[in-house]
Amino acid sequence: MARGARRRAAGRRAPIVTLLTDFGAASGYPAQMKGVILGALPEARLVDLSHEVPRFDVLAGALLLEACVPRFPAHAVHCGVVDPGVGTARRPICVADAEGRRLVGPDNGLFTPFLGAGARAFLLANRRILAEPESATFHGRDLFAPAAAWLAGGGRPERLGPRIPDPVRLDWPEPERDGDAIEGRCLTADGFGNILTSISSRHLGKSPRVSEVLVAGRAARFVLTYAEGRPGELLAMVGSGGRLEIAVREGSAATLLGLGRGAKVSVRLG
Amino acid sequence: MARGARRRAAGRRAPIVTLLTDFGAASGYPAQMKGVILGALPEARLVDLSHEVPRFDVLAGALLLEACVPRFPAHAVHCGVVDPGVGTARRPICVADAEGRRLVGPDNGLFTPFLGAGARAFLLANRRILAEPESATFHGRDLFAPAAAWLAGGGRPERLGPRIPDPVRLDWPEPERDGDAIEGRCLTADGFGNILTSISSRHLGKSPRVSEVLVAGRAARFVLTYAEGRPGELLAMVGSGGRLEIAVREGSAATLLGLGRGAKVSVRLG
Amino acid sequence: MARGARRRAAGRRAPIVTLLTDFGAASGYPAQMKGVILGALPEARLVDLSHEVPRFDVLAGALLLEACVPRFPAHAVHCGVVDPGVGTARRPICVADAEGRRLVGPDNGLFTPFLGAGARAFLLANRRILAEPESATFHGRDLFAPAAAWLAGGGRPERLGPRIPDPVRLDWPEPERDGDAIEGRCLTADGFGNILTSISSRHLGKSPRVSEVLVAGRAARFVLTYAEGRPGELLAMVGSGGRLEIAVREGSAATLLGLGRGAKVSVRLG
Repeated sequence: MARGARRRAAGRRAPIVTLLTDFGAASGYPAQMKGVILGALPEARLVDLSHEVPRFDVLAGALLLEACVPRFPAHAVHCGVVDPGVGTARRPICVADAEGRRLVGPDNGLFTPFLGAGARAFLLANRRILAEPESATFHGRDLFAPAAAWLAGGGRPERLGPRIPDPVRLDWPEPERDGDAIEGRCLTADGFGNILTSISSRHLGKSPRVSEVLVAGRAARFVLTYAEGRPGELLAMVGSGGRLEIAVREGSAATLLGLGRGAKVSVRLG
Repeated sequence: MARGARRRAAGRRAPIVTLLTDFGAASGYPAQMKGVILGALPEARLVDLSHEVPRFDVLAGALLLEACVPRFPAHAVHCGVVDPGVGTARRPICVADAEGRRLVGPDNGLFTPFLGAGARAFLLANRRILAEPESATFHGRDLFAPAAAWLAGGGRPERLGPRIPDPVRLDWPEPERDGDAIEGRCLTADGFGNILTSISSRHLGKSPRVSEVLVAGRAARFVLTYAEGRPGELLAMVGSGGRLEIAVREGSAATLLGLGRGAKVSVRLG
Repeated sequence: MARGARRRAAGRRAPIVTLLTDFGAASGYPAQMKGVILGALPEARLVDLSHEVPRFDVLAGALLLEACVPRFPAHAVHCGVVDPGVGTARRPICVADAEGRRLVGPDNGLFTPFLGAGARAFLLANRRILAEPESATFHGRDLFAPAAAWLAGGGRPERLGPRIPDPVRLDWPEPERDGDAIEGRCLTADGFGNILTSISSRHLGKSPRVSEVLVAGRAARFVLTYAEGRPGELLAMVGSGGRLEIAVREGSAATLLGLGRGAKVSVRLG
């Protein structure tokens, strides 16, 4: 088999489109988006990130994107729709970050983790590429899905519309540091009831020595894995996404603590 | 088949099979159907429409198919299994509609939206194509999945078995009209608690002027998008599937109204 | 491109990787595994078996694998992660059974149904193939997904590491037989509330004549399909996976009986 043929056949870069929404997997809405994408790009590989983002919770969606997107090949296109503002004047955008990742969705901060240095944002405006949305309430299907398919098929972001200098950024929660003390916040809980915090391995350093973790005044023991904990014990560890997590072995920290977003987490190093 | 034709057929039109059931996505039953389809047609692209159709609710399944199927390329094959009658004498069928769409499943009305003018229905009977089902309780895996794979691979519906002149049709809910007054019914709620009604854009006309919407005696304000509503306000709008929906901004109309299927909805035009 | 090459390339045997976890489909964790697999093997076809295995319930996961895996083409690779021991010394393994199936995951009994005669197990140890896991808590993403992708791409199990002579086996529940009497146990319930038991068609024989089924002392009528039952009637039948199931027509046997795993089921033949 010739080298060129092999390369083509192997589909080294079969287009990938991921979907993240708050629609519910069973609602039929993600399926409609997939139908549109496959109509435009039959060879697309579709992967669900999640369709159960808490409704309208843009930060929770952004945190899921932060955890999932870097695990995909850079040529994947990510279509994210958590969109309380559909039907209003909020802008539809494409973000292209410095790693070559492309994300499509509403301009409401959902893509904040990818708006670092070197990122560019474009308005979805080119009517030669994107038809006028058929419905005023389902841009996921009528605007973002076609844009994602077009990009995954090889289209360049800058052709979608004019550059936007000021994409909306969430007030991204960064912890405060004072010597060996770091103070952060609870952000969201995963399906196991593990609480993700605003403190990450970036703040703790490699192989961190942590002498104290307090969550809303309660002590959590810092461990490397759940398995070090006793059943029911309150634990803190750096999770698989690099964030400090509060967990209970074989239990739910979210249920145990009953904390909402914004509850204080403090860490003492050393 | 000429070589060029084969190549076009092989790629551009990668076979698509969608699945809709009331089995639950996590039950393992949809996965077994997918295993069978991939065994017969390894190049099939599989898309879940929903596996959480309310159990045995054939009308809810039919409404989801109505919303999703038209969004897929016409060569997709749709395998729908909401089948309270499995194990009884209800017929297994394939429906081929005038647009070239093909659907496979039980003959119980699930495919009513696709039984309009020009549609044909065939019994799944040809034992040279379809083996005797291995189980009496899982036709989704043993009969419908193989039939869908066979069709998606290029098989023609008329080879599956004799034509059925009288496929079962649901008593499809059509609204009544009296001058400017339209009276319809609540049908089902989506995952957001938006209530779908039997009144659609077909009945309202393009850019409809609606002076009044009453749902079980309560007034709903007619708007173009959710975003026009105040939080908590009862709204009516033409949804993304073309049906009049009753909604509450940032809330659930189904919960607020507590209405079952069949509750009255009346609209006054002008 | 030669015809043979094309046939091979066309993906007659497109690699398939299935996933079964207790992570929750919406948690983002299965999506991260998929990103890793597609990064390593872009042509992989990914199929979810279930991500809602009851948390840490290794037997429930094993029963789902038993039901689903045999429905897939033998070249599929199955990645199963129900792993209460992640972070401890439990071994990561690949099982290759006598039918050529390959499964990857923790060595905790999850693959018991595939550890029959002729099966081999290998430690996931070869650091030239598998990088050191990035996280101590997410071997699904960092170890099992890469191993599954490598196998699905054509890698041979014996290259992954040394053979393990003693993979962990669950104490697999086998019924006891005394003449015409068979005594088994309730194992788990499916999403419909049908209770799977440790008695299977293997014990009952083909076209079994069953004169009595007792579940925790209550009589269930033996039928061939649900449809023979009256609504609300307690039924017993051989389910689509070959196991004796306890069911209630249009109801939930699990709810009706309120039984846990291990409750007695006795059958009298003849």
